[in-house]
Amino acid sequence: MPLSHDQSAEIEAARAERSPTLRPTVPALETMLFQPIPVLDHGFIRVIDYMGDDSAIVQAARVSYGRGTRHVQQDEGLIRYLMRHRHSTPFEMCEIKYHVKLPIFVARQWIRHRTANVNEYSARYSVLDGEFYVPDPAHLAAQSAVNRQGRGTVLEGEEAAWVLDLLRSDAARCHEHYLAMLNEHEADPARQGLARELARMNLTLNTYTQWYWKIDLHNLFHFLSLRADLHAQYEIRAYADAMLETVRAWVPLACQAFLDYRLGAAAFSAPMLAVLRRMLAGEPVEQADSGLSKREWTEFMAALQPPARG
Amino acid sequence: MPLSHDQSAEIEAARAERSPTLRPTVPALETMLFQPIPVLDHGFIRVIDYMGDDSAIVQAARVSYGRGTRHVQQDEGLIRYLMRHRHSTPFEMCEIKYHVKLPIFVARQWIRHRTANVNEYSARYSVLDGEFYVPDPAHLAAQSAVNRQGRGTVLEGEEAAWVLDLLRSDAARCHEHYLAMLNEHEADPARQGLARELARMNLTLNTYTQWYWKIDLHNLFHFLSLRADLHAQYEIRAYADAMLETVRAWVPLACQAFLDYRLGAAAFSAPMLAVLRRMLAGEPVEQADSGLSKREWTEFMAALQPPARG
Amino acid sequence: MPLSHDQSAEIEAARAERSPTLRPTVPALETMLFQPIPVLDHGFIRVIDYMGDDSAIVQAARVSYGRGTRHVQQDEGLIRYLMRHRHSTPFEMCEIKYHVKLPIFVARQWIRHRTANVNEYSARYSVLDGEFYVPDPAHLAAQSAVNRQGRGTVLEGEEAAWVLDLLRSDAARCHEHYLAMLNEHEADPARQGLARELARMNLTLNTYTQWYWKIDLHNLFHFLSLRADLHAQYEIRAYADAMLETVRAWVPLACQAFLDYRLGAAAFSAPMLAVLRRMLAGEPVEQADSGLSKREWTEFMAALQPPARG
Amino acid sequence: MPLSHDQSAEIEAARAERSPTLRPTVPALETMLFQPIPVLDHGFIRVIDYMGDDSAIVQAARVSYGRGTRHVQQDEGLIRYLMRHRHSTPFEMCEIKYHVKLPIFVARQWIRHRTANVNEYSARYSVLDGEFYVPDPAHLAAQSAVNRQGRGTVLEGEEAAWVLDLLRSDAARCHEHYLAMLNEHEADPARQGLARELARMNLTLNTYTQWYWKIDLHNLFHFLSLRADLHAQYEIRAYADAMLETVRAWVPLACQAFLDYRLGAAAFSAPMLAVLRRMLAGEPVEQADSGLSKREWTEFMAALQPPARG
Repeated sequence: MPLSHDQSAEIEAARAERSPTLRPTVPALETMLFQPIPVLDHGFIRVIDYMGDDSAIVQAARVSYGRGTRHVQQDEGLIRYLMRHRHSTPFEMCEIKYHVKLPIFVARQWIRHRTANVNEYSARYSVLDGEFYVPDPAHLAAQSAVNRQGRGTVLEGEEAAWVLDLLRSDAARCHEHYLAMLNEHEADPARQGLARELARMNLTLNTYTQWYWKIDLHNLFHFLSLRADLHAQYEIRAYADAMLETVRAWVPLACQAFLDYRLGAAAFSAPMLAVLRRMLAGEPVEQADSGLSKREWTEFMAALQPPARG
Repeated sequence: MPLSHDQSAEIEAARAERSPTLRPTVPALETMLFQPIPVLDHGFIRVIDYMGDDSAIVQAARVSYGRGTRHVQQDEGLIRYLMRHRHSTPFEMCEIKYHVKLPIFVARQWIRHRTANVNEYSARYSVLDGEFYVPDPAHLAAQSAVNRQGRGTVLEGEEAAWVLDLLRSDAARCHEHYLAMLNEHEADPARQGLARELARMNLTLNTYTQWYWKIDLHNLFHFLSLRADLHAQYEIRAYADAMLETVRAWVPLACQAFLDYRLGAAAFSAPMLAVLRRMLAGEPVEQADSGLSKREWTEFMAALQPPARG
Repeated sequence: MPLSHDQSAEIEAARAERSPTLRPTVPALETMLFQPIPVLDHGFIRVIDYMGDDSAIVQAARVSYGRGTRHVQQDEGLIRYLMRHRHSTPFEMCEIKYHVKLPIFVARQWIRHRTANVNEYSARYSVLDGEFYVPDPAHLAAQSAVNRQGRGTVLEGEEAAWVLDLLRSDAARCHEHYLAMLNEHEADPARQGLARELARMNLTLNTYTQWYWKIDLHNLFHFLSLRADLHAQYEIRAYADAMLETVRAWVPLACQAFLDYRLGAAAFSAPMLAVLRRMLAGEPVEQADSGLSKREWTEFMAALQPPARG
Repeated sequence: MPLSHDQSAEIEAARAERSPTLRPTVPALETMLFQPIPVLDHGFIRVIDYMGDDSAIVQAARVSYGRGTRHVQQDEGLIRYLMRHRHSTPFEMCEIKYHVKLPIFVARQWIRHRTANVNEYSARYSVLDGEFYVPDPAHLAAQSAVNRQGRGTVLEGEEAAWVLDLLRSDAARCHEHYLAMLNEHEADPARQGLARELARMNLTLNTYTQWYWKIDLHNLFHFLSLRADLHAQYEIRAYADAMLETVRAWVPLACQAFLDYRLGAAAFSAPMLAVLRRMLAGEPVEQADSGLSKREWTEFMAALQPPARG
């Protein structure tokens, strides 16, 4: 359960307070506002605030006055055109803010995306709770034998149990020692207590942290195109998938365009396009006479298969 | 009058449409929303959308749940502390979007601020109106004799009239020829008409353009610290001053902290601080024995004077 | 001739001064260093400085020590892999600095790319020369009838002559009046002279300006993918094409990967990929039963054609 | 000793290879190039590459041709003027690239600076060495009683020994288990081995990582102004101090200007300036009648003291 009783009460209170506004408002996202969507064993995302909607994208593209009459059909065509041609600035006119609770090793991948605003819980000022990520057995993957970056089959039986036990006990012991070194409230009056900014170094990388993360829609789509992708590590993909659902509620037209033209799209290089032309003309082409390397050929063939993602 | 009849009607319509929202809402800014604030002879700014308020800054600084109880006193102290110590990330949690109409030479200064999102009216796609900035006689300044970057006294009499006439007639003639070269709607059936993307090069730099401009509060304060400053060119300062009024309505606590700790502040270098210590100890110090260059001494003395800005 | 006698002498002097360095050095780019490459009628680009080479990209990708042994074959494969999979950070490890002279309307398009460092010649401080871009008759295009953003056929005969004359005479007159209003060196002792920051507004948008522009290789590739593209306005494409030649000399492996996987590549959306699968299975597909809009179908067919770019 | 024998050999080889270049070259920095400067117990920084020098800043400020004649006196005055007035773009024309080895908890603070290019050693692909930061006893500070963010006095005797032992043994055990879970090279043939991307979560935050980090001089100064400051955590300040030495060798004029006008400077708010004016006029001012809060008054008094930093 990721939220304390107090926190749940605060969220309920916040959700009770409605104000009238002239700003573009998205009822489907309002129903989600402030509510945590669980991710992994102790994490969550929740939408804290947002600016703009599908028609704000259209408005910026048209640089017209007011929000004007809404011709959904035309708006959809324009949004899809913008996405297809990577005219990215109108998507930058929408902004969203999340509150995220996530393991530190996931936070380290996430933060590589620099075009966002971040306020993270600081372990220089505050004490971190003893919550750590331990994978669900279904996600306890072996190292892939063919791909240095990837996962293989799932660990089973004794090995799985032994690994889960190590992860749990090491994290717990490190956090226990962290608290002991802090010696807050003079638990042991004979000791001074180590500075928080130092003691935190004893924590393991699966300890949970949290942050506010604010980003514009264009850069969010870029984040999602990398992190909702099947090549992304499962743990960050779980967050990306949850965010994708909030984006679908927020800007349905832009989200569908993103799914069609970015997440579900494939880019073919000039040499791949040349092979494609030969194939469409009815010529049988093999890797050997394709001009593509083995690796490129494999990727090319994979792109021509129906998507695994349903 | 910067807005057409149609545009005014659209704004009125937009202002009539209120929705309930759970998001932080600022009544003082809602009353300004969509309304153009005139700047220069044909320009304006208007707030199109916003995200967050003073308490969103506090919330990010505390990385707490919900919006919690509001202790304005404590919030104010925290916001002032953040501003004073340049803890900038909590201010990045607020975002504002403007629609701005401005002369091209002002747009060229403005766009140097890179940390914003921009959608400008495109003269590749559309035809620019024949509106150009001509300074009010009170702002028709001579070149400063002492400062290569600055303005001197105001031009008067015949010279002023002659300059204003040149500015007006050159801009008008260039725009007239622009329309003629475009030959849209086959005004002259014997001609094809020059491409819009080429014809626009005939316009003068005082021609008005417009854009949507979206920025977070931290970067907006940085923009204002440079452009609401007395060293900024009058024409861009006029925009910065108008924006400052919207910021005051939006985030009054952060705005006052900005005025006190940034816009009205002065930075003293290590050598200046050394001189200051001698002066406070009662020692009379002259430039010659101060260790400061003449230029630094002048700047130092100026910083110790009461502010010109009242 | 874009350079004055003095400037040419300075470049020659700079090119005479060689220093030994331990840094990665690219002889093919050293031969180009400081030399202006003419673009349009009065413009140029010239490389002023650079950091890194193909092996710096590899080094960052491997986060290995020193520059290590060079296996060009392996390096090439790795660089092509990075480009194909949009692993962009290793390309950010190379940096290049240009000095560019360009018309103001081109500078306004260019500056939309925000991830670069810019120092532009300032008309607040200095006086701009009377040099303006006038298109070569071969590039004096009519407005496209089918594409609001595009160019059609080239203007001919009387209309061309008339347009070129207007462009020339309007720019010249405006610049003449600019100098007259400035009244520098008291050309007319009876006048004070208008401030430079104001007088510049009388110039036309084809007036030349110049700047230093510094960017990392990843962002340069992004710039080139948009501006060396056939959809870009000819005038900025001319600059992009010249820069592409310097990139080819600087990082030949990365440049070839960029040409294959980015500039010459095509992205197919999920619906396009579905159609492609049907076509490769031998099924004849028409737009009507493709699930693609007419516009998408046209774009899809165009992507399957051999490239126009040779 | 932070470098292996192989690494030292590679650095020596790289340092033996000199090439002639036309680029601005800084002999004082060339002598440092590639050489690791030790930081903390196992960390280091080393300069890998650089672009520009003091005169490149001047050149950009003047947007002049070539490097021109060097009038060091004038260059110094101009550079100091730029720094004093926060004209930051000319400093962006210089770029430097470091290779840094640092504990993960320091990396997490460091990465908050977004305007840099980073390539970090990836524990998804590679196995991390068992090297962890353990503070020198002189830096084993207690939590400050007055400042939630700060350090108090140094821990002593038994408590110090106990803390150091915990830090060492927890980190070592976690790393040992990390290797065991990986089971690389089938150390235990009965086990599959956990995926690297998962096993890494068992490591403690004082484990060392490494990265290439590239940044322009303006943003580096911003980084140093925050991280070489006495309020920064000691561990990151140790890195900032080492970098400051490389900057001093690289751009001595800009570095001195930075020390005088930024690192050693103090900003006084509008209310503080008002108090200062009263004090300089000979009036005795107390906190109670100063208009400053207690906190502000303390900070104000501190800024008027001679610097602690020598």
